[in-house]
Amino acid sequence: MSCHEYEVQTMLRKNMKNKILIQTLNIGIKNKKDDAVLFKLPKSSKVSIVATKNKFAAAPVIINRKHMKFKSKFLLVNSGNANAGTGNQGIKNAIGCAKILSKEIDCNYNEILLFSTGIIGQQLPMKQIEKKLHSSSYDFKASWVDASKAIMTTDKFNKIISKKINICNKKISVNAICKGAGMIEPNMATMLSFVSIDLAITKKNLDLILKRVVNKTFNIISVDGDMSTNDSVVLISTGENSDIQTNKPVVLKKIESQLEVIFMQLAEMIVRDGEGATKIITINVLNAKNNLFAKKISYSIANSNLFKTAMYGSDANWGRIIARLGSLIDINFIPSKVKLYINDILVFKNETNTKMSDSTRLKNSMKKSKIKIDLLLNNGKGSYTVKTSDLTKKYVHLNSAYPS
Amino acid sequence: MSCHEYEVQTMLRKNMKNKILIQTLNIGIKNKKDDAVLFKLPKSSKVSIVATKNKFAAAPVIINRKHMKFKSKFLLVNSGNANAGTGNQGIKNAIGCAKILSKEIDCNYNEILLFSTGIIGQQLPMKQIEKKLHSSSYDFKASWVDASKAIMTTDKFNKIISKKINICNKKISVNAICKGAGMIEPNMATMLSFVSIDLAITKKNLDLILKRVVNKTFNIISVDGDMSTNDSVVLISTGENSDIQTNKPVVLKKIESQLEVIFMQLAEMIVRDGEGATKIITINVLNAKNNLFAKKISYSIANSNLFKTAMYGSDANWGRIIARLGSLIDINFIPSKVKLYINDILVFKNETNTKMSDSTRLKNSMKKSKIKIDLLLNNGKGSYTVKTSDLTKKYVHLNSAYPS
Repeated sequence: MSCHEYEVQTMLRKNMKNKILIQTLNIGIKNKKDDAVLFKLPKSSKVSIVATKNKFAAAPVIINRKHMKFKSKFLLVNSGNANAGTGNQGIKNAIGCAKILSKEIDCNYNEILLFSTGIIGQQLPMKQIEKKLHSSSYDFKASWVDASKAIMTTDKFNKIISKKINICNKKISVNAICKGAGMIEPNMATMLSFVSIDLAITKKNLDLILKRVVNKTFNIISVDGDMSTNDSVVLISTGENSDIQTNKPVVLKKIESQLEVIFMQLAEMIVRDGEGATKIITINVLNAKNNLFAKKISYSIANSNLFKTAMYGSDANWGRIIARLGSLIDINFIPSKVKLYINDILVFKNETNTKMSDSTRLKNSMKKSKIKIDLLLNNGKGSYTVKTSDLTKKYVHLNSAYPS
Repeated sequence: MSCHEYEVQTMLRKNMKNKILIQTLNIGIKNKKDDAVLFKLPKSSKVSIVATKNKFAAAPVIINRKHMKFKSKFLLVNSGNANAGTGNQGIKNAIGCAKILSKEIDCNYNEILLFSTGIIGQQLPMKQIEKKLHSSSYDFKASWVDASKAIMTTDKFNKIISKKINICNKKISVNAICKGAGMIEPNMATMLSFVSIDLAITKKNLDLILKRVVNKTFNIISVDGDMSTNDSVVLISTGENSDIQTNKPVVLKKIESQLEVIFMQLAEMIVRDGEGATKIITINVLNAKNNLFAKKISYSIANSNLFKTAMYGSDANWGRIIARLGSLIDINFIPSKVKLYINDILVFKNETNTKMSDSTRLKNSMKKSKIKIDLLLNNGKGSYTVKTSDLTKKYVHLNSAYPS
């Protein structure tokens, strides 16, 4: 890099006003570790949220529905306490957090969005939080990596993707973090994700992109079939690179497809971290009567404990897949047309197993950490894909020992 | 007992022509143990079957649909091989078994009903079976206890109830056996049950009783959410005690309610034997908008791994129950009206936990092997009850190691 180039770069960096600033802090929920992240959004930013549909949605989820009507200036995320199943007091406490914080960072309390994850049913330790929020110095020196660590609960590893994507021949920064391990299911689950993209996108288009991308990524993963009270995915356009005309359909399409890749990588990280999981299993249901049937079949297999334990045992147990399919008596298909492939090896057709189901090649392939199931119904054009993890002794251990 | 009484008893016993005769045998599926039972039905008997609705129903299930059009004289039950997922060859083999046996015991092959349970997808060892069926001596000296043992697969214990029930002031014998452990779900699952009652009941009434009783007993148990390819429940009226007018509605009602008690005991034995289970959990969903909603909610909780592992950990984790309920977004209920009792202790109301959820009384009660969940929606008159087991490390061990 020449001196001139270096100067230009530095200048550009300084000129990048539309930057998300990050602060991690301990607000007294966890013992000493950081248990909260504060994101300060640039003025030019837009925010879109897709949140859980659970009818016992956590207090922060309920509050965000109101706060989204205002300009969002800050995001406060805490880990260790979900503030869910906490009734009216939980709502009051969440608003309390926003109010206390708003005084420290000089904004209106409804300009703060709230996110919580952790144990259900315990009230937030408000006195501690007040004390800690008051005594913190808000220097916003933390990184996305720091943030990805501070939002962890039962996660075995922090989950982050920072990369440049190519939009209109310009390299655009995307920072994406998430947390989540157990309780993952369609419509997400105890998972939070925060993704920023250095573009200027209208709120309407941002909402559209996020909804579509979530449907194709986070909404197709299933670890244990539960939809959590706290799930939220946030997409922030910072307002940078405003010269790029993101209103053009072709540009929007490009942004969407690149974000889809990133979101899918995050989703796979969650499945891989599925409590106690040793395998990630992709279930493709193909040529079903329609997409809805394909979806029902794929989730039904993904949530079958007999199937999930067989996968843990590296056992190509086609019988459990077929028996599960057969048990879906409301779904229209023709048994004699069904074909099943495991790791690209045809194991079932004409209502019985092929000789391949005992082959050494198949047996060896089952030991890998990625398993692929293709179930062809040959009955229409419907298809659906679900990604899930296996059911292990460690899952039972973790989930029977975790305090309520 | 006087000499006279003894003579009368002996005479009565000899006069009891309408007796089911039983033979247990080894037909070459298991190594040495008995792997088959043959029931010889009295001429006066009637038979009713409720069988799996699985679209990949096993060969014997398919064949019984045809054979039920004939007078059933024998039942052949084998364990160790389900003859499911075996395609056309499986059908041929099943018919083959009936044909071979029919020559030995002098009947038409379609007068034999067939039942199989065991590993899916392996063809029956026909040469062995032919040899064994041919060389057996059919003395029918076995008991219901022997039969209950010969039909076991992964069962930890044999399941039998032999008792007298009181019908019109007469003591009526009922012999009931079943097998089943894993894969148990609504519409039954890898379970077989054979129940005889010493009465003369018309086929029509027998069908009616069986259907109703199964719906209230076997169909409300759920171990791992799968409906098997082989489930069958058989009710046989032997034709004994033909003086009792079983056509009378009041008598039928009496028979039904007494059989319901016996069937429920069998069903509970299956749940208690749920692979690796340590607890039996009754989930009552009450005052739901309607029965269908109550049913969906109760099964959804029963099939939640987070709930089932919490039960294994003796953890009164109301949060997982409430989160599961909340995730059922298509079900109409009012969150603020929901109340949850665990072992008769109110743990959740007004969208938050009561202080009781941490009480010593509740904690101690969770250590028991019987757990009761009452979820009140206070939103209508619908109710449903499901019985399930906990999810344990042993379940995972058994089901990941079981050969496919």
